[in-house]
Amino acid sequence: MSEPLRLGIAGLGTVGTGVVRIIQNHAGMLAARSGRPITISAVCARDRMRNRGVDLSGYAWEDDATAVATRDDVDIFVELIGGDNGPAKAATEAALAAGKDVVTANKALLAHHGPALAEAAEAAGRVIRFEAAVAGGIPVVKALTEGLAANTLTRVMGVMNGTCNYILTRMESAGLPYETVFEEARQLGYLEADPRLDVDGIDAGHKLSLLAAIAFGTRVCFDAVELEGIRRIAIEDIRHAADMGYRIKLLGVAQMTGRGLEQRMSPCLVPADSPLGQLQGGTNMVVLEGDSVGQVVLRGPGAGEGPTASAVMADVMDIARGIRLPTFGQPAASLAEPFPARGAVPAPYYLRMTLVDKPGALAKVAATLGDAGVSINRMRQYGHDASSAPVLVVTHKTTRDAIDHALKGFAATGVVIGEPVAIRIEAV
Amino acid sequence: MSEPLRLGIAGLGTVGTGVVRIIQNHAGMLAARSGRPITISAVCARDRMRNRGVDLSGYAWEDDATAVATRDDVDIFVELIGGDNGPAKAATEAALAAGKDVVTANKALLAHHGPALAEAAEAAGRVIRFEAAVAGGIPVVKALTEGLAANTLTRVMGVMNGTCNYILTRMESAGLPYETVFEEARQLGYLEADPRLDVDGIDAGHKLSLLAAIAFGTRVCFDAVELEGIRRIAIEDIRHAADMGYRIKLLGVAQMTGRGLEQRMSPCLVPADSPLGQLQGGTNMVVLEGDSVGQVVLRGPGAGEGPTASAVMADVMDIARGIRLPTFGQPAASLAEPFPARGAVPAPYYLRMTLVDKPGALAKVAATLGDAGVSINRMRQYGHDASSAPVLVVTHKTTRDAIDHALKGFAATGVVIGEPVAIRIEAV
Repeated sequence: MSEPLRLGIAGLGTVGTGVVRIIQNHAGMLAARSGRPITISAVCARDRMRNRGVDLSGYAWEDDATAVATRDDVDIFVELIGGDNGPAKAATEAALAAGKDVVTANKALLAHHGPALAEAAEAAGRVIRFEAAVAGGIPVVKALTEGLAANTLTRVMGVMNGTCNYILTRMESAGLPYETVFEEARQLGYLEADPRLDVDGIDAGHKLSLLAAIAFGTRVCFDAVELEGIRRIAIEDIRHAADMGYRIKLLGVAQMTGRGLEQRMSPCLVPADSPLGQLQGGTNMVVLEGDSVGQVVLRGPGAGEGPTASAVMADVMDIARGIRLPTFGQPAASLAEPFPARGAVPAPYYLRMTLVDKPGALAKVAATLGDAGVSINRMRQYGHDASSAPVLVVTHKTTRDAIDHALKGFAATGVVIGEPVAIRIEAV
Repeated sequence: MSEPLRLGIAGLGTVGTGVVRIIQNHAGMLAARSGRPITISAVCARDRMRNRGVDLSGYAWEDDATAVATRDDVDIFVELIGGDNGPAKAATEAALAAGKDVVTANKALLAHHGPALAEAAEAAGRVIRFEAAVAGGIPVVKALTEGLAANTLTRVMGVMNGTCNYILTRMESAGLPYETVFEEARQLGYLEADPRLDVDGIDAGHKLSLLAAIAFGTRVCFDAVELEGIRRIAIEDIRHAADMGYRIKLLGVAQMTGRGLEQRMSPCLVPADSPLGQLQGGTNMVVLEGDSVGQVVLRGPGAGEGPTASAVMADVMDIARGIRLPTFGQPAASLAEPFPARGAVPAPYYLRMTLVDKPGALAKVAATLGDAGVSINRMRQYGHDASSAPVLVVTHKTTRDAIDHALKGFAATGVVIGEPVAIRIEAV
């Protein structure tokens, strides 16, 4: 048996506590599988006094993350603080500079500073692993980086924010509006301190940008992710989608096109009987498509103490076993510029709007779509009250630009009341 | 860039040809990701003259697998011959003895000789990798060995024979009897040369025994897998199951119990709306359950040129990247005896039988179940002809022993016509 592998853990929230618990409860198993005892040298967290239900008395307590990261008796710095700047970034940089490997669950940090950190790690001869940053307990970073390493990836998709999926699923099952379910989720503690990270798709967008970098060998480019959250999804849209055999999911899609890398995190209609359509509640799902393998789907818990700690510890075990890969699967210097392509991949769209109830209104809508080059696959007018008529359109494949053109045109017709809704239909 | 990693490939069927194709078409990508060019030094196959659609002129041709395995210019022996004995085994042993790493898609070889081969590999300081041997393109060996390495696994399940799943799915969708669909599958080329490997669950049982060894840290013990194939599944059972919200799958389950390791590969009823229940056609699915992570589900193509070659090449890439783990995730000497436990985990059962249509018949059946200690959850008697009555029973949780006891009892009642059917209902 080799020397112990010694961890310094910064952040003792849910995940950090879970990591301590696994190491304390499974010491023998971890050593048998990795060939080395895994130990903890030092920890830090905001509140030393809080009772976390684990015994921390055997570990040195530091007052800040950088002190943990740079201790002589630490081999791996485990960063569980979060945030794309501040102490997480400073401590991670300090750890690499001090010759430590880094294991992190911090998607924001890597989405914003991934290329620079990967270069710093390589310059120092150290590794950064981040399985826990994407889709919780699902070993998707490993599946993509290693399991599908011989594939040219063609598309990566995922439902990677459990809170949004919980909200959308609950809206459908209980017939409740967004605002009500959002409030429920808040009270259940499902939302981030800043809920925009969840419902505006930012958190999930961070994750998508990391998977895209690995899949397509490109530098992480979170700024190029087209972000659209779920706040504007109405219960009517969920119902109409269900009527047509679809469900609405906050779906991330990264795809290499002839024009460059397209990355979207946005509500999409997906077939209700597809694996993505069937995904309920807080569970995550990632779909990987490669030229040789075809489609591989991974499903599992996207958050929580046990699942996230499991992913953190998988990275620790990899390092204990001598598995040392570049951060994004290939040397940072060889990662290509992504050439962000917005709207490169056409798709059918679902449109919902309310028309004034007078002769010729529907004709004006149809003409506007025609002028925008959008062709209609299906159109339905629903039963309506005296003065207005809800109308649904499913288009043939078209571009986002053409849809935006049509949406502008609708405003000029004078027959469309309020904002029309446009949601992409993704072929999954 | 380091020295090339040189392969010797034995077997140029579908998978071998796929491996050659990936190496020829993706040379730059493979080198960028692994840091080493991947090349082929030599190949062998039964028929040199066959046109495989790939150019083999740059590779030495050997007449037998052992010659490929022992060449000086070969670093990894890629064994794609198949079979648990004969040339595959001899060449694999020769490769290890000659100091080569081995990548294989051969589940039968490892199911029968895994412990000895793992010991031989360790003694020689070489590795054996076998991602392609289990569930085709799904990176499940990696997910289990590495991705969930920090978990105590509690249960591993899977639908891992695409042909059986095709047959069962097609029986349901087309309402056709087993014999008809079996013949269709044969004509479509879906069946192994010896179809018993598929329909008797042997092939899937091999795979289950390999996953169980990794999951539970035990020596592979294929002989302890309780095997029951799909030949006796009648279209009536598929229909009755559907009526009750279930589907019938050839499901492998490995579970560590207080009495030892239970491994079963048998038809089971699973909820129709569960991921396993929704699996259609030839696709494979593996469900991994760990104490920290909860449940992770992996779904993908279980066979075919591209998917299986993708898995073979993932192992090659691992070795190129310096990832070297023991065959079953921990040193062979540390693998425990499995202490096979048959029937340790209770479950509800579905029973179908035909009764003579006379007073008291149903009472005799109910009494027989009671005598066996089997308690009834639901019972249905279907519309029937003049002389006999089909009866369905769903039991509460019970043991296989109790069910077998009841089945014997039925024979003695004189009111049960023919063989009753008993199928386990697995909670997934």
